[in-house]
Amino acid sequence: MPGSQGVFGLPVLNAVKPIDIDMSMHQENRERLTKAFHSKDVPSNSIIFLKGGSESARYNTDREEFFRQESYFFWAFGANIPDVAGYIDIDTGESTLVVPYLPEVYEIWMGTRWSLQEYKMYYKVDAAIYDTQLADALIQKDPEVIYTLQGYNTDSKALLPSPKFPGDSTYRIDNGKLFPIVSHLRSIKTKKEVELIRNLNEVSSEAHLAVMAAASPGMRESEMEALFQHWTYAYGLCRYWAYIPICASGPNAAVLHYGHAGAPNSRIMEDGDLTVNDMGAERHCFASDITCSFPINGKFTEDQKFIYETVLKANNAVEKEMKPGVYWPDMHAMAYRIILTELKRGGVLTGDIEEMMNDNVASIFMPHGLGHLMGLDVHDVGGRPKGSKKDSRLGFQSVRLVDNLKEGMVLTCEPGCYFIDSLLESNQELLAKYADMNVLNRFRGFGGVRIEDNVLVTKDGIEVFTKVPRTVEDIERACAGQITSIADIKT
Amino acid sequence: MPGSQGVFGLPVLNAVKPIDIDMSMHQENRERLTKAFHSKDVPSNSIIFLKGGSESARYNTDREEFFRQESYFFWAFGANIPDVAGYIDIDTGESTLVVPYLPEVYEIWMGTRWSLQEYKMYYKVDAAIYDTQLADALIQKDPEVIYTLQGYNTDSKALLPSPKFPGDSTYRIDNGKLFPIVSHLRSIKTKKEVELIRNLNEVSSEAHLAVMAAASPGMRESEMEALFQHWTYAYGLCRYWAYIPICASGPNAAVLHYGHAGAPNSRIMEDGDLTVNDMGAERHCFASDITCSFPINGKFTEDQKFIYETVLKANNAVEKEMKPGVYWPDMHAMAYRIILTELKRGGVLTGDIEEMMNDNVASIFMPHGLGHLMGLDVHDVGGRPKGSKKDSRLGFQSVRLVDNLKEGMVLTCEPGCYFIDSLLESNQELLAKYADMNVLNRFRGFGGVRIEDNVLVTKDGIEVFTKVPRTVEDIERACAGQITSIADIKT
Ligand SMILES: [Mn+2]
Ligand SMILES: [Mn+2]
Repeated sequence: MPGSQGVFGLPVLNAVKPIDIDMSMHQENRERLTKAFHSKDVPSNSIIFLKGGSESARYNTDREEFFRQESYFFWAFGANIPDVAGYIDIDTGESTLVVPYLPEVYEIWMGTRWSLQEYKMYYKVDAAIYDTQLADALIQKDPEVIYTLQGYNTDSKALLPSPKFPGDSTYRIDNGKLFPIVSHLRSIKTKKEVELIRNLNEVSSEAHLAVMAAASPGMRESEMEALFQHWTYAYGLCRYWAYIPICASGPNAAVLHYGHAGAPNSRIMEDGDLTVNDMGAERHCFASDITCSFPINGKFTEDQKFIYETVLKANNAVEKEMKPGVYWPDMHAMAYRIILTELKRGGVLTGDIEEMMNDNVASIFMPHGLGHLMGLDVHDVGGRPKGSKKDSRLGFQSVRLVDNLKEGMVLTCEPGCYFIDSLLESNQELLAKYADMNVLNRFRGFGGVRIEDNVLVTKDGIEVFTKVPRTVEDIERACAGQITSIADIKT
Repeated sequence: MPGSQGVFGLPVLNAVKPIDIDMSMHQENRERLTKAFHSKDVPSNSIIFLKGGSESARYNTDREEFFRQESYFFWAFGANIPDVAGYIDIDTGESTLVVPYLPEVYEIWMGTRWSLQEYKMYYKVDAAIYDTQLADALIQKDPEVIYTLQGYNTDSKALLPSPKFPGDSTYRIDNGKLFPIVSHLRSIKTKKEVELIRNLNEVSSEAHLAVMAAASPGMRESEMEALFQHWTYAYGLCRYWAYIPICASGPNAAVLHYGHAGAPNSRIMEDGDLTVNDMGAERHCFASDITCSFPINGKFTEDQKFIYETVLKANNAVEKEMKPGVYWPDMHAMAYRIILTELKRGGVLTGDIEEMMNDNVASIFMPHGLGHLMGLDVHDVGGRPKGSKKDSRLGFQSVRLVDNLKEGMVLTCEPGCYFIDSLLESNQELLAKYADMNVLNRFRGFGGVRIEDNVLVTKDGIEVFTKVPRTVEDIERACAGQITSIADIKT
């Protein structure tokens, strides 16, 4: 309903409504997991045991942080509440949710205590028990093997340690088999997961559209962040960010992970700035991860248009090629080739394309990876399966999916082109050989451009979830407030 | 500028502008700290060493959380950036900020690296060094004693452990003296701190006013949270919450700490609900903590007015009494007495006031404490000095300031009155004796009321920082959109 009035006079573009959460999504994931174990060599009467996270506070104070569930546990059980665990009988697929036994005083401070029956119904599990009953339940079950989760995240290199539980030392524990299996299953999204991710992407897309219409010189970068969050929470039920928002204007757009506490989206934007807004809301623990680049005054300069369309060409070309079987690092290389070709066409570079590819010249302008799997984590798991190749070259080392595309994968496609002082300086020799320094120097302080879509790999191609203005024409219309619904976007 | 248009058509009430941060506030705190040590038995050539916090990520992923500095360190150095430390020469007061030596690759991903001179100027310290220089700097200084911070938070009971630093085992460390001294100093606010807290309170007050005007039946509680955050961030430069927001409508208003992940402000509000909005933004790590209670349809019923004015009487009476020398738990008791008196006047209670005080009947209706110190932590430190009395009675046990009021203290005054099913049930015997159960039962499911101001103890009374509608008349005008500036509030 474009033009109608929402909270406090804020125009409601939002034709997009957040869909209801279907908890059977997690039931299905548990079934997939059990099935995957059936094809392995697993003794009968064995269980898979998973444990969720706990609340944390700021340092030693009583100021609690927002609780957010650990993603592997959430994938299987869908419960975004602290101190829960769960297990699955591999023979029968029967699932049990283990919930904390809460004291009566909980009702004064925290809220109603659910009955076990209520937990069971809401989370669609076969049984719910209190944590105080877990030790006995396991003794009674006497499982042959308990499969627990332990493994290293391939992006952070950090360990998720095998959980502790009552009597854990008395059982035969296998903490190795589960991790790669769930990581792989998480990398292939189900129909229900896809529905949620698609809807969330539309919510986040609409918020980006609202930001484009609202942003203007003289505002602080953080006002865009504030509006985006308001939109996705008030209209999209997204309380959390999928990641720390990047609202980078002018020269800040050349800082890839701008927006953190040390560089907190605090610049006042100026006429003539190009802005890179990399923001995505989170819902039911699923991420969105969208980047829009646009001129803050609503009109591209010739140079801005040139760099923007360079990146857009890379984005379009990659998305056209994407389908099952395509090796993702090859797409990264293709994006590099296109960026080199366009920068040469525009007179920034002068060298031979193949020579520049050999010397990895494109990485000076795009030192990050082309994209990453996305799901319950914004940099989702499963992207570097065992045996996948390492590539230490700048840019290539940050390609977080080192595998062939598979049907059901959801990933970002996010080429960029930046003029990063420190890289331009440390690569002077290479640039002297391949660039027209007079032209290149015109772009010092320009910032950069990133165009990031979230896409689903389908049977024979992709579906692009992200619905934001992408052509120069559409962006200028959006900045002028002439696009009032994501359904109006032509591209 | 009431009526003018801000971000995306959102009306800008905000006459309140966020003030500039004066970093000399922390310089002054360091001077206060050094001075406090001079009056103690401290060997010459000793230093105070403090260490800030580090960034953290979600579980084992690379998804970073917003960084927020540890409050003790921040109080002394004002630097909201990760991995910094600092030390102060007690003899000279000379302060040194220790910053991480960042690799060149930082410039690609995170932003410009400051020079030591830039750190020194911005944070108004006497010197800045890299962490890689710390070991040598300490060897050269060869301090007699290094005073480090270690102690238990009196609210969470959690330990802040003495920090590790290069060569720490080779020095004489005193980790006991510092904690109570800084905790006490933090409890007395300086003029500069007061200016910031006052301004922040006005920003949060204005956001509450905007929420009152915007809220209506059919909205979700979370829309109020989203609007409040948008307001305080876009117009007040507050990126973080001081605590998890409580937007509790209808029966939820009887849950004191509603709003967490297990009860996440998700109810759709109904005509006839009373709403308890306990929300406060944080700026430069300082907290605000304000609660407004109002009817979501904009008009109080007789019963709502009765309970609301009961709490307002307690709030007004306590604030009238507050001044240096007043023992805060006595104010808690006074609030209880007023609540009992009013509930008796309204026919809910029938017993003798003194007998009901002896039986702690008021705690059934207000099981929380009357207020707490507020500053860099929302439940600020210093409220239970060594030797302060313990009182295990319901309500009294939650009074977080067990001391006389002192000039410069900032605290909340937050009486409430709730109808909490679990307490009404577990106190049936007492209520059979003292209450008219027919009248009391009328209030089952009513929810509750809390009125929370933030106040400064002055030389001979208090200054109330919070500027929100408080009388029934003003609240109804605010809900009708008839108050467009906090300057228009009569009370
Ligand atoms: Mn991304
Ligand atoms: Mn409070």
